[in-house]
Amino acid sequence: MPSAASTTASTPHSATPSVATFSTTGYAAHSPTSGLGLFTFERRQPRANDVLIEISYCGVCHSDVHCVHNDWGSARYPMVPGHEIVGRVLQVGEQVTRFKVGDRVGVGCMVDACRHCTPCRKGWQQYCESGATYTYNHRDRIDGLRTYGGYSEKIVVTEDFVLKIPDALELPGAAPLLCAGITMYAPLRQWQAGPGKRVAIVGLGGLGHMGLKLARAMGAEVTLITRSPGKEQDARSLGASQVLISSDAAQMQAVAGQFDLIVDTVPYQHDVNPYLPLLATGGTLVMVGYMGPQEPPLNTSLLVFGNRALAGSLIGGIAQTQEMLDFCGQHGIHADIELIPIQAINQAYERMLRADVHYRFVIDMASLQQQ
Amino acid sequence: MPSAASTTASTPHSATPSVATFSTTGYAAHSPTSGLGLFTFERRQPRANDVLIEISYCGVCHSDVHCVHNDWGSARYPMVPGHEIVGRVLQVGEQVTRFKVGDRVGVGCMVDACRHCTPCRKGWQQYCESGATYTYNHRDRIDGLRTYGGYSEKIVVTEDFVLKIPDALELPGAAPLLCAGITMYAPLRQWQAGPGKRVAIVGLGGLGHMGLKLARAMGAEVTLITRSPGKEQDARSLGASQVLISSDAAQMQAVAGQFDLIVDTVPYQHDVNPYLPLLATGGTLVMVGYMGPQEPPLNTSLLVFGNRALAGSLIGGIAQTQEMLDFCGQHGIHADIELIPIQAINQAYERMLRADVHYRFVIDMASLQQQ
Repeated sequence: MPSAASTTASTPHSATPSVATFSTTGYAAHSPTSGLGLFTFERRQPRANDVLIEISYCGVCHSDVHCVHNDWGSARYPMVPGHEIVGRVLQVGEQVTRFKVGDRVGVGCMVDACRHCTPCRKGWQQYCESGATYTYNHRDRIDGLRTYGGYSEKIVVTEDFVLKIPDALELPGAAPLLCAGITMYAPLRQWQAGPGKRVAIVGLGGLGHMGLKLARAMGAEVTLITRSPGKEQDARSLGASQVLISSDAAQMQAVAGQFDLIVDTVPYQHDVNPYLPLLATGGTLVMVGYMGPQEPPLNTSLLVFGNRALAGSLIGGIAQTQEMLDFCGQHGIHADIELIPIQAINQAYERMLRADVHYRFVIDMASLQQQ
Repeated sequence: MPSAASTTASTPHSATPSVATFSTTGYAAHSPTSGLGLFTFERRQPRANDVLIEISYCGVCHSDVHCVHNDWGSARYPMVPGHEIVGRVLQVGEQVTRFKVGDRVGVGCMVDACRHCTPCRKGWQQYCESGATYTYNHRDRIDGLRTYGGYSEKIVVTEDFVLKIPDALELPGAAPLLCAGITMYAPLRQWQAGPGKRVAIVGLGGLGHMGLKLARAMGAEVTLITRSPGKEQDARSLGASQVLISSDAAQMQAVAGQFDLIVDTVPYQHDVNPYLPLLATGGTLVMVGYMGPQEPPLNTSLLVFGNRALAGSLIGGIAQTQEMLDFCGQHGIHADIELIPIQAINQAYERMLRADVHYRFVIDMASLQQQ
């Protein structure tokens, strides 16, 4: 899940003391400054429609860092982060129909939603009117227990929010697809990236590198826009046919009106006005990286005189996440990752804050047994 | 044409002294503060594909006031404003095929465009990459002569930019359709106003009152959002089923997430953040009234967490303008107007600046003969 300047964590229910639980281990933060360390905690015993998953790998998303540091003001400690989860089914409840023991599965940013509001009925659980249940730092809608994420050995999730990992995908590189992948796939599909379309991706990080791969696989002509010279070779190998340096006014001017779609992954407050003239008439710039209250003033004449739109998109619904995984399976698309033991998580956070990762850390959860 | 904080008037060609012209009269401004007065000037003799039109009525658009006062910095004097033109064909060039003498015709904001760029080929002449030729305060692309608008007795326009006025429409109330009408019709069609859709129009002026009529006729459920109490009766008679006062936080809160489309006609700098939460997931707010460089900071989380878009739209293409006129003919839709003699134009401008018009002044051009 991309970074957000503010989110509201709802509390649908209070914890019910009578819930049957089991103990499991993971890594948790106990305060914004504690760092993460070994933690033993309780998860619910699987309900009739639950899947118990042994976690093999978990991607490390920028929003994990923000949550742990309480940058959005909604942190609840102890917090076990992680919402790019892949693993194998250990056990299924008696009403589970889509999974069996041993299946390769994934869990993303959400583990439940109301399922009956208009967005939910459209398959947009991420926009659930009463708020989706997030994979960590939230509460289960039924028993009110705290949700704990994927930096742990096991997780229990209702089967409707469990994804199948296609056989063609390797698990470590598939983990980041559950958040970074779907965050890019959803807007590329919604705004119809494909053959004959010119797509630009702003920013080459965890999201951006997936954007290049996915847009290229969809058949679009793909450009990377970045502040940083020196990314050209990487970008081209990831699928870009062109790399633009955003601080080079001549380069930006030369592509005025060239793009049907720009997906902006920049995860901090920034000025979008320089990107809008790059859109063709009728084009759309979609923000997926930063969501905050104080973007610099917008020049609306760039919208009106070009029939342009500035839009936002948040991860993706469950059915579309499965579609994205299947698409990645067909096209052999994984995230580019650096596999780490969980004992290296605090150093990994420090490196992420320096943008020193190509392009996603993934925790090898087997390392948890090496305590 | 709605108001713009900045426009660039291109000058495709210099005037060619050898152009054959004829004298005609109108009302012109000679400086930002001169007011408008009687003016005799030259127009080109009709070329082979031109239509010579006797102007019967001309609507008075807010952008006329802005242009005359040089609010956008691009004024050329003397200036004959007016781009909501209806009249009858007096003469046609030998290659004209779609019009004959006596036909009831209209001319809007544009009298030409390059016709071969991507937007032009899509029928979006208003977004012509080299700039459409505006009906006044511009230069003809072929002979370089200044363009003068509809506050005059006659105009010469290439037939491809002349519209047919359906028999069912009365000319005075049809004049404002050529700008105010198409400015609202285009976004309502582009974002699919129609049965089952909930549309809100922000602002009840020349644009807003057309928005209510058109959206209602398209079958949408229509709401007016206005700063001003006391407009309820008018709004309901124009097609609104609901009227909201934008300063009433409780009213605004009560309709959160209710609208598929909001068309914002407010013609000055304002904060759109309070309107965005009113959009349903996937909804769009389209700005058509104000286009400027300094909107208040945008809260992009309202876009991202709701899959919402902020878009802009400028008048409409020629084919769509004809479609809009035909639609108005079928549905009996005219602008609500106050007919004035041209001698009252300066007082009309003063009243427009006080928003004292319901909802469009239209000049009866017969009054020009009464000098």
